[in-house]
Amino acid sequence: MPDNNLKQARLPQGAEVIENPLGTAPGYRLDLPQGVAVVLPGVPREMRPMLDDGLIPWLASRCGGEGSRVARSFQIFGMSESALDAALAGLTEAEGEGLAFRAGVPNISVRLSVTGGEQEAAERLDQLAAELKSRLGAAVYAEGETDMETVVGELARSKGVTLATAESCTGGLIGQRVTAVAGSSDYYMGGLVAYSDDVKKKVLGVEGSTLAMFGAVSEETATEMALGVRRLTGSDVGLAVTGIAGPTGGSEEKPVGTVVVALAADGLDDGAVSRSYRLWGDREGVRLLASQVALDWVRRHLLGLKADQSALGLRGRGRA
Amino acid sequence: MPDNNLKQARLPQGAEVIENPLGTAPGYRLDLPQGVAVVLPGVPREMRPMLDDGLIPWLASRCGGEGSRVARSFQIFGMSESALDAALAGLTEAEGEGLAFRAGVPNISVRLSVTGGEQEAAERLDQLAAELKSRLGAAVYAEGETDMETVVGELARSKGVTLATAESCTGGLIGQRVTAVAGSSDYYMGGLVAYSDDVKKKVLGVEGSTLAMFGAVSEETATEMALGVRRLTGSDVGLAVTGIAGPTGGSEEKPVGTVVVALAADGLDDGAVSRSYRLWGDREGVRLLASQVALDWVRRHLLGLKADQSALGLRGRGRA
Repeated sequence: MPDNNLKQARLPQGAEVIENPLGTAPGYRLDLPQGVAVVLPGVPREMRPMLDDGLIPWLASRCGGEGSRVARSFQIFGMSESALDAALAGLTEAEGEGLAFRAGVPNISVRLSVTGGEQEAAERLDQLAAELKSRLGAAVYAEGETDMETVVGELARSKGVTLATAESCTGGLIGQRVTAVAGSSDYYMGGLVAYSDDVKKKVLGVEGSTLAMFGAVSEETATEMALGVRRLTGSDVGLAVTGIAGPTGGSEEKPVGTVVVALAADGLDDGAVSRSYRLWGDREGVRLLASQVALDWVRRHLLGLKADQSALGLRGRGRA
Repeated sequence: MPDNNLKQARLPQGAEVIENPLGTAPGYRLDLPQGVAVVLPGVPREMRPMLDDGLIPWLASRCGGEGSRVARSFQIFGMSESALDAALAGLTEAEGEGLAFRAGVPNISVRLSVTGGEQEAAERLDQLAAELKSRLGAAVYAEGETDMETVVGELARSKGVTLATAESCTGGLIGQRVTAVAGSSDYYMGGLVAYSDDVKKKVLGVEGSTLAMFGAVSEETATEMALGVRRLTGSDVGLAVTGIAGPTGGSEEKPVGTVVVALAADGLDDGAVSRSYRLWGDREGVRLLASQVALDWVRRHLLGLKADQSALGLRGRGRA
C-alpha cells in the first residue's frame, strides 16, 4: 500500500464510518452541535451506493417530518410527452395529490404522490395508480425505477424463453443492456454484432440478393437477421435491429434515424415480424432509442401482445 | 402538433433564441439590467449541446477576465491513482501552475494549467505537457476529452486495420463502444456476443474439450474465442473477453472480477496473446473496466506495443 493511502484511515473524533463497498476510501458522518456533517468520496459510482444504503433514511430521521406523503412512480415508453399529458389530464385534481413527469431518452417517468392521513393517502394512491395504468395500458412497462432490460429479463425467466440478438446499428448495445442484468445467462444465449454486410451474409445467412435488392436497412434484411440469429443459436426468440444512426449514411429515402426492428419466434406468420421506424436525435440518441424499441418488442411479445405495435405513439411525438 | 406544444414558441421580449438541435423546445438568452438570463430545456441531453455551442463563450464574454489561463488535459489508463500521484510528484511547483486529477472509472484525467502572460503561459504549458507525457509513457492514451474507443478508431483507420470482437462477460459493451464512434463501419466488422457456452462452441469454434478442461473463463478459451472471431469475420485483429462480472458465478480460484482478455493478429506467437486480470467493482464496474482494458489492448497492439502489458499497474491500485 502506498504511503499516500494512509490518510484514508484518518477520521475526525466522533465520526461514524460509512463503508464504501466499491473502493477503499470510506465516508463518515458526524453529529455536530450546528447540524450534521456527511463526508463521502468524490467518485459518483462509489458515493451513490453509500448514500442509498442507509444514509438517506439517517438524514431524513434528522430532518423531522410532518403528515404522511406516499408516492409511486411508473416507467412509460412508446408515447409522446404530449400524448401522455393528454391521457393523464384531470387524473389528479384534489389538494395534496401530485403528478410529476420526468422526460428522458428513452423513457418518461411519471410519479404520483398523495399527502394526507397515512391510510387514506395509501388508498387514494392505489386508486390513482390503477386509473393511470388503465389509461395508459401497455405503455406502462414498469413500476418503480425498474428499467426495460430488467422487465424483459423477468418475463423471459418466468416464461422459460431464451433470447438471441442480431445487431447492426446498435453495435452491441442491446446485448450489453440485456447482460447488464445479473443472471441474464439464464435466458440470453448471445448474439451477433453484424456491422459489416459480410458478417450479415457469412454468419447470419442473410442472402446477398436481399442486401442488393432492399439494402442493409430494410424489413427484408432485418427479418433474415432475426431468423438467422435464431437458427444460429437455437434461441426461442431472435431479435434484430438494423438502421442508420448517423451522422452520415442517410439518404432521401432512408434518412438518418431510419431503424428497422424484426423479431422471429414460433407462431408468427413466416416466423417473423418486422417494422421500420423514423427515430431522431444524434448518433447516441438514435441508438439508445432503437435499443429501447427493440427491447419493448421482446417485452410485448412475451406478454402475448403484438410486438410490432410498440412505440407507434412515438412517431407523432411533439418534442425530441 | 398538439396545442400544448404552442407554448414552446412563446418568448420574452428581447430574447435571443438558442437553437436546440436535438428537440423542438428552444432556449433563449436575454441581457437584462441586473445581469443576464439564460433559459434552457431541462433534458440534459438537449441542454448540453446548446450550452457548449456558443453559450459558454458568450457567458465568459459577459464575465470579463484577467490575465491568461491556459490548460491541457490528458486521459490516463492503466495506472493506480497512487502510482500516478507519485509519478507526477513535483511536476508543477511554481506559482500559477496547476495540476488537477479527476478519477473516474475507468479513466483518470489529469489537467495541467498555467496562469500568466499569454505567450509565456503557453510555452510553459507545452514544457509541462512534454514532461508529463515522458513520465507516464503509454499510460497516456489521449489528450483532451477523447475517449479510448475514439483513439482505437483513429489508429485502426490510419493503419487500415479491421477489428472484430468476441465478448462474453461484457455482453456487447465493447461492440457498443467501438460503434459509438461515427464511421466505425470502416474498420469494425462486427462481433459475437458469446454468452452461452453453446454459442462459443457452435459459432466461434471453441473446442468443447477446452471449455471442459480450463473453463469458459480461461486464457485457453479466450484465445480460441479471439482466433475464432478472426476466422469467422476475416478481420485483421480479433479481440476476446471472457470473465465473471458477478455478483454470482465466482469461485475461490476464479473470484468475481476475474477477466481474461485475448488478442489474435498476424505476427503473434501462435497467432494470439492472452492474460488474466483480477478486476473490481460491481457488475457494471467490472464490465466497464474489462471493456477499457480490452480496448487498450487494441490501442497498444496498433501502436506496436505489447498488448498484454496493458493495465498491469491497475493490479496494485490503492483504491477502487
